[in-house]
Amino acid sequence: MAHVPASERRPQLVQAALDLMAREGVAAGSTRAIAAELGVAQATVHYTFGTKKDLYRAVVEQLTAEFIGNVRAADPGDGPFGEQIRALVHALWENSTRGDGHCELLSEFAALAMRDPDLQEIMSAMQREIEGTAAEMLTALAEAHGIRLALPAREVAVFFLAGFDGLTDRHLAQRTPGEPADPDTLRGLEVLIATAVGLCLGAPAIS
Amino acid sequence: MAHVPASERRPQLVQAALDLMAREGVAAGSTRAIAAELGVAQATVHYTFGTKKDLYRAVVEQLTAEFIGNVRAADPGDGPFGEQIRALVHALWENSTRGDGHCELLSEFAALAMRDPDLQEIMSAMQREIEGTAAEMLTALAEAHGIRLALPAREVAVFFLAGFDGLTDRHLAQRTPGEPADPDTLRGLEVLIATAVGLCLGAPAIS
Repeated sequence: MAHVPASERRPQLVQAALDLMAREGVAAGSTRAIAAELGVAQATVHYTFGTKKDLYRAVVEQLTAEFIGNVRAADPGDGPFGEQIRALVHALWENSTRGDGHCELLSEFAALAMRDPDLQEIMSAMQREIEGTAAEMLTALAEAHGIRLALPAREVAVFFLAGFDGLTDRHLAQRTPGEPADPDTLRGLEVLIATAVGLCLGAPAIS
Repeated sequence: MAHVPASERRPQLVQAALDLMAREGVAAGSTRAIAAELGVAQATVHYTFGTKKDLYRAVVEQLTAEFIGNVRAADPGDGPFGEQIRALVHALWENSTRGDGHCELLSEFAALAMRDPDLQEIMSAMQREIEGTAAEMLTALAEAHGIRLALPAREVAVFFLAGFDGLTDRHLAQRTPGEPADPDTLRGLEVLIATAVGLCLGAPAIS
């Protein structure tokens, strides 16, 4: 490959690492394999990512940016508040379970983070960013509808994302990626949306 | 070690494998390491577990049995329905986050199952058993209180367990095992309990 400046090389390497790990798992993402994926020298990978932590952080940041970009780009339609939430969550679900291995990779990182303080720090930052984005979008939607949220947006976001992660894991741990979810999971998603909307609007069971 | 019959050796080996993997991760659970953990010959491990799948299944079954045993043994107290649910969920949370590495191990198995059809089958069976137990306990509690559930027990169980798994992962991916959960996670747990009880009793936002 011709020489390219580091500013171009870095995103190429991050994408190559992401593609490789999404396809074959985190363990497959050695510097040797990443170099081979892009057809560069192994030293280039070492030069770009000083440590494994730098590499993991770059890949998780790329995954986070993609994820947030996809949700922000989703069309909530022009229905009432609850319908817009529903449309956004379904777009999020499609993105998370489309079989590109990205969601599987995040679950793998999350499991590894439970034993690795470096990864823990990286995953915590990602969690904060995703929860912050969800809270911000929820607040904007509510304002656009003149709704005063009955529960802080952040609490609804943490509750919703935990349920969403649990359902995604349930789906991915049981189904081949790309296959449709089973009826129990889809029903769980509908119940989750209904309860999240209920929390926003002030369902009486919630203290 | 003196010769012991296979019927005794097997549970010892399963426990040794579980202890080892809970401490050091799934990847650390080679037949050689398991044999060393219990002080037996490597051939004994091979003889007891024909394949890696047999070994993983035995460990996951042991984890499932422990988990279900702990929940069944928890004291719901003698308060009203919602209070009993709350007491059981808090017992479940204590068990899941007590820092013995068992929950971390299950998350690791779940992530691996996304790429491994053998593990997928094992984890699906576990999921069905846990959801079935939760639905059964919920039904029994409702009956004891003369409550007719507004949503099928199984739907509430799937919804609740997805949220619970998501919150457990949130906690474990951010905190050192054994440390208390952060306020956001604990608040998420309270919201999850309140919505689950609301679903049982017929909160109006739920269709």
